[in-house]
Amino acid sequence: MISIIDYYTTQFGELWDKSLSDLIEEALKGVLKNSQLDKKQIDAIFFGNMLAGVLENNLHAPSKIAEILGVNIPIFRVEAACASGGIAFHLAKNYLDANPNKTILVIGAEKMTDYSPEETTSALASAASGEEQEAGLTFPGLYAMMANYYLEKYKYNEEHLAYVSFKNHFHGTLNDKAHFRRKISVEQVLKSPYIAYPLKVLDSSPISDGASVVVLTNNQVLVKKNKNQVKVLASEVATDTLSLNKRKNIDEILATKLAADKAFAISRIKRKDIKTAEVHDCFSIAEILAMEDLGFWKKGEGGQMIKKLSTMYGKNGDLIVNTSGGLKASGHPVGATGIKQIGEIYLQLTNQATNRQVKNAKFGLAHNVGGSGGTAVVTILGT
Amino acid sequence: MISIIDYYTTQFGELWDKSLSDLIEEALKGVLKNSQLDKKQIDAIFFGNMLAGVLENNLHAPSKIAEILGVNIPIFRVEAACASGGIAFHLAKNYLDANPNKTILVIGAEKMTDYSPEETTSALASAASGEEQEAGLTFPGLYAMMANYYLEKYKYNEEHLAYVSFKNHFHGTLNDKAHFRRKISVEQVLKSPYIAYPLKVLDSSPISDGASVVVLTNNQVLVKKNKNQVKVLASEVATDTLSLNKRKNIDEILATKLAADKAFAISRIKRKDIKTAEVHDCFSIAEILAMEDLGFWKKGEGGQMIKKLSTMYGKNGDLIVNTSGGLKASGHPVGATGIKQIGEIYLQLTNQATNRQVKNAKFGLAHNVGGSGGTAVVTILGT
Repeated sequence: MISIIDYYTTQFGELWDKSLSDLIEEALKGVLKNSQLDKKQIDAIFFGNMLAGVLENNLHAPSKIAEILGVNIPIFRVEAACASGGIAFHLAKNYLDANPNKTILVIGAEKMTDYSPEETTSALASAASGEEQEAGLTFPGLYAMMANYYLEKYKYNEEHLAYVSFKNHFHGTLNDKAHFRRKISVEQVLKSPYIAYPLKVLDSSPISDGASVVVLTNNQVLVKKNKNQVKVLASEVATDTLSLNKRKNIDEILATKLAADKAFAISRIKRKDIKTAEVHDCFSIAEILAMEDLGFWKKGEGGQMIKKLSTMYGKNGDLIVNTSGGLKASGHPVGATGIKQIGEIYLQLTNQATNRQVKNAKFGLAHNVGGSGGTAVVTILGT
Repeated sequence: MISIIDYYTTQFGELWDKSLSDLIEEALKGVLKNSQLDKKQIDAIFFGNMLAGVLENNLHAPSKIAEILGVNIPIFRVEAACASGGIAFHLAKNYLDANPNKTILVIGAEKMTDYSPEETTSALASAASGEEQEAGLTFPGLYAMMANYYLEKYKYNEEHLAYVSFKNHFHGTLNDKAHFRRKISVEQVLKSPYIAYPLKVLDSSPISDGASVVVLTNNQVLVKKNKNQVKVLASEVATDTLSLNKRKNIDEILATKLAADKAFAISRIKRKDIKTAEVHDCFSIAEILAMEDLGFWKKGEGGQMIKKLSTMYGKNGDLIVNTSGGLKASGHPVGATGIKQIGEIYLQLTNQATNRQVKNAKFGLAHNVGGSGGTAVVTILGT
């Protein structure tokens, strides 16, 4: 059995005084200190990062991490756009499936705020297809196409989308590591400027800096020593076309459905057993699609379900979603996001989530998406 | 047991009429056709690529590959500078160690010649440390520092280096997929222009396009059906500091030594059993250091050993090195290199190396390096 035995995250936000290396160093040394592990006990490191090559001519991170920690162990960088963190976790779990008695750090990090919005938006568009880039489509544009199609097909409107941001900003007020820690109203979302109709600024996750790391181990001595540990019951990946126009439906993310179905089958957990989930809300529409594609809500029900706010903390619903604040309020340093999601579930399942602690949560799920749905990772954790 | 059951490589060279996607598609479809495998028999794909993000704003390759092949399986992109291919292979092997009865494609690809030499050199420098980049050091400069130190310490001169290029260009004439297929003399190497003293143009591997892929499986039915298969006896990775100035010695690549020692220990193969090897000769000095650090030659002996040309095809030496032409003559599309090296050993061990076939080769080794030695992967294959 593979377990997460610790988690550390830096602050998420506009961290002007910190470089990517600073963030990586803080996270790695932070989690080693927290967990009272010596670096000599670490057998490998997996690192998820999307943009350092594009934005700052910064590749070959494995060697940079070896230098930061003063180690010569295997270190791997993986990239799958905004799913880089989730994929790093998946491959780290796989590494432990193959190697008994090992301990791994899985880190995701991204430094995004040192550049103009145009530079960052263009860099993020590198996860879209060449044709989409040439057509001038950025990710707000791609998700706007999905949102328009969904709202039209199921007869919803922009107000339904706005409830996602309203809920997640409230959750952000409860998470001191979140990028945004203020409430916003549905009206504020609706009055915010359009960036790609029907999506507005307040339907969109921000550009953030941050690094998050978990300690993953199948060393049962370490697991037993640690009172705060959760089991990795499944981590499943699926892919789909890069281009939206090659897909049969754009009111669903097929990769999410495939990964979720595999993860639930392997873990033998039922949807109703999941009490807390972090889903990939890069835009408000994305959380609605995610909840449907993960199988928590029926297709087309998402608009009315989100308006009921049953997934909001404090509403006594059966499943609370994005207690971290989600990408919307917690922030979206893309490589870090997949690890932060898993870390948030870890905190929930180990009763360390303080003022946003979901009660009686024995199972949780994290859902990380790359691009407009070309990659999806679904991770199920349990106590 | 994990086996390689097929290999395909595109031509390496300046392939003006082919995009990165074209190269990936040719390689993937080529190897499926060769091996008579249907895409439905493929369980996952690992992809090594360094520069597509930096050079052409092209990330999220897993989804692009899913689109090319029309599949929804797990696909992973890894990056470790010029060791991206070798690392992709290592993680693919690890994936099979964890999952019985699976078949994987491991592909490396790079598209480098659509850009100015300045753009490509600057992009490649992204695998050096920030301080090295700020100091104006590119990879020729970094390897030149190693070469100067080595030549001075062990009393060799530029002629010793030139023998590496002489040998590898001769090998290139025997490989119809090689970027360069003409002999060069030691005198020509010595008369070629300096790019970073003491390294000259003809001490340096070229900027190339290309894609290479192997089929890796632990499905024993598939292995038995295939007469051309080799076993993966070891694949080991080590890391070191990114910056040269943080290392104790610059006349060795410590990561190579550590990975090689582990690989030989795990495979229980002795150095003398290896009859054919592909080593990472991005610059002439790199092959000499590699031969020493891999344990084939003693430290400091490399200069005199290369001049004897015992590792040249046709000289009846005990170990023939870089029969593909090496990075120098076969070309160096960086993400593809690590896979092409493994593919060349596969061809040798299955007696498919035609006019460059090493006799009685039962064991072979591939050695792939990232940057100036921050990452090294050593793979040992056997029949």
